[in-house]
Amino acid sequence: MKKIAVVLSGCGVFDGSEIHEATLTLLALSKNELEYQCFAPDKDQYHVINHLTKEVSEEKRNVLIESARIARGNIKPISELHANDFSGVIFPGGHGAAKNLSSFGYKGENYEVDEDIARVIVDFHESHKPIAALCIAPVLIAKVLGGNLTIGNDKSTADKLIKVGAKHIDKEYHEVAIDEKNLIITNPCYMLADNIYKVYVGVQATVEAMMGLIKK
Amino acid sequence: MKKIAVVLSGCGVFDGSEIHEATLTLLALSKNELEYQCFAPDKDQYHVINHLTKEVSEEKRNVLIESARIARGNIKPISELHANDFSGVIFPGGHGAAKNLSSFGYKGENYEVDEDIARVIVDFHESHKPIAALCIAPVLIAKVLGGNLTIGNDKSTADKLIKVGAKHIDKEYHEVAIDEKNLIITNPCYMLADNIYKVYVGVQATVEAMMGLIKK
Repeated sequence: MKKIAVVLSGCGVFDGSEIHEATLTLLALSKNELEYQCFAPDKDQYHVINHLTKEVSEEKRNVLIESARIARGNIKPISELHANDFSGVIFPGGHGAAKNLSSFGYKGENYEVDEDIARVIVDFHESHKPIAALCIAPVLIAKVLGGNLTIGNDKSTADKLIKVGAKHIDKEYHEVAIDEKNLIITNPCYMLADNIYKVYVGVQATVEAMMGLIKK
Repeated sequence: MKKIAVVLSGCGVFDGSEIHEATLTLLALSKNELEYQCFAPDKDQYHVINHLTKEVSEEKRNVLIESARIARGNIKPISELHANDFSGVIFPGGHGAAKNLSSFGYKGENYEVDEDIARVIVDFHESHKPIAALCIAPVLIAKVLGGNLTIGNDKSTADKLIKVGAKHIDKEYHEVAIDEKNLIITNPCYMLADNIYKVYVGVQATVEAMMGLIKK
């Protein structure tokens, strides 16, 4: 049974992993008889957002501990993630990808990617294993690898990815951008989908594309 | 388009709504072209569990505010939920159903159900509209209405529901217990399912059974 690493960034669309995208990633993997293991950085979140009022809270929360909610406790620190143990890696979206896994959400095109996340992306790339990213998470790949990818059709966001060296391809919610040379798979999810079922359609397409790129 | 109320109890299996069950409920509703609105009680959680270590944390968190993470901010307090506005109601599982929506999780068979939750269950029952509950959430219905229901096949839990007046039917992860007289639909989800895809199979069966019971 092939095993896929899923990298989470907290628990909640505004300050962590988008819960639907993360959960539906696990569902699509399970449905396709792929095993998975969740990972997240063991560090404080950039901030905590009250998801009812959308206001910044005074609380401190840890990315790994909050991500454990999505993973039902079965999660490991990102430092333990090595491409050698997996057939591919998936980064679900949510503001956490832009605030906890990188600084894209508050620095724009002058952003950096978390060192552990960058190491993981390079590790899978050098191992010729596929890397998938949903929603806003392609910013992580754009900065580290460049490549052909999509965040949907938002010109302002796409332009920033082009400035850091990626090529952007407009895609709809049900379409994936596949970079066959670099084994990168991206889908817009909630960047474009206006309901949860459309997110699942995109996530399923992503996982199926990944299966096609995994070496037999 | 018919609209279903989804009642959440926080965000995380050990102290709130089971995230997969809640998310997959929204997915199954969306896939079946049912609208939904999430609700939760506006009160403190019974406690906060660190989902990485499983230890009780010193933090205080509010059930409505944490549930808003699953609902992407689109959630209302349970006090605003009235059967008149919906075709049915679903209670996903997670320890939150047994700790925040009732005291089953720490009082056993001598438990009470949150007053607002009990009011909602009676409201839908008297309106002859279906009530679904997943995983451990059938404890809410057992105490308020009795009826025929399932929490899977755990004898100790089932015996407690029988003591408060319900009839228990053993069911597998892919089966629903349907009480046609009282319009109650229950499914074991993670009480029995050993992967997320099996949870989705049970959730889909639950939503399809609910569609069958909704009056045209």
